[in-house]
Amino acid sequence: MAHEILDHPDLGALDVTAVLDALGNPLRLEAVRQIAAGVDLTCGSVLPGVSKSTASHHWRVLRQAGVLHQERVGRTVIMSLRRKELDARFPGLLDAVLSTTGPTPLPSHLP
Amino acid sequence: MAHEILDHPDLGALDVTAVLDALGNPLRLEAVRQIAAGVDLTCGSVLPGVSKSTASHHWRVLRQAGVLHQERVGRTVIMSLRRKELDARFPGLLDAVLSTTGPTPLPSHLP
Repeated sequence: MAHEILDHPDLGALDVTAVLDALGNPLRLEAVRQIAAGVDLTCGSVLPGVSKSTASHHWRVLRQAGVLHQERVGRTVIMSLRRKELDARFPGLLDAVLSTTGPTPLPSHLP
Repeated sequence: MAHEILDHPDLGALDVTAVLDALGNPLRLEAVRQIAAGVDLTCGSVLPGVSKSTASHHWRVLRQAGVLHQERVGRTVIMSLRRKELDARFPGLLDAVLSTTGPTPLPSHLP
């Protein structure tokens, strides 16, 4: 049986800086990209090469910023993106972030 | 006579996380909002109530992330937003960030 865990802030109470700060980390952004792409993630299944305590820190930052929702199902913690709420609170922000790619050359002529 | 100062990274070499991290701070975001709104800012004229060394740190973070351009004109350092480059590299991101407002209640019914 699923039940809520821990603190999930009301996005209406959050400033955008909390979300930007949470996404402004390569590991956290990669995890969010995977979850947004529909990859079924649990707290233990991502962030390879990262210690359990470090991973817990990153999940907490994302949860407290309102980016992720965590739900305990049996002995597993399932994560999901709070996309509808984020899109309502900060229109276009998540799409703009997720549509970015890694470092690539700029076009030689800017508009 | 104006001349360049310090390091201004090629935005093509930057990951979006550097930009998000730079904007994910209330003081820095407020300064960027003012500059984006056309307020003519110098390094000394914003970030009231912040020590000179703290202000310098924030300007450096914004410059090294590719968000701001700094130019020395005489004894003054003028700042400008690298908007064209940011828009080319991360389409929609800056607009999405700048269009956000402070904490407000969410609509009671989400789509």
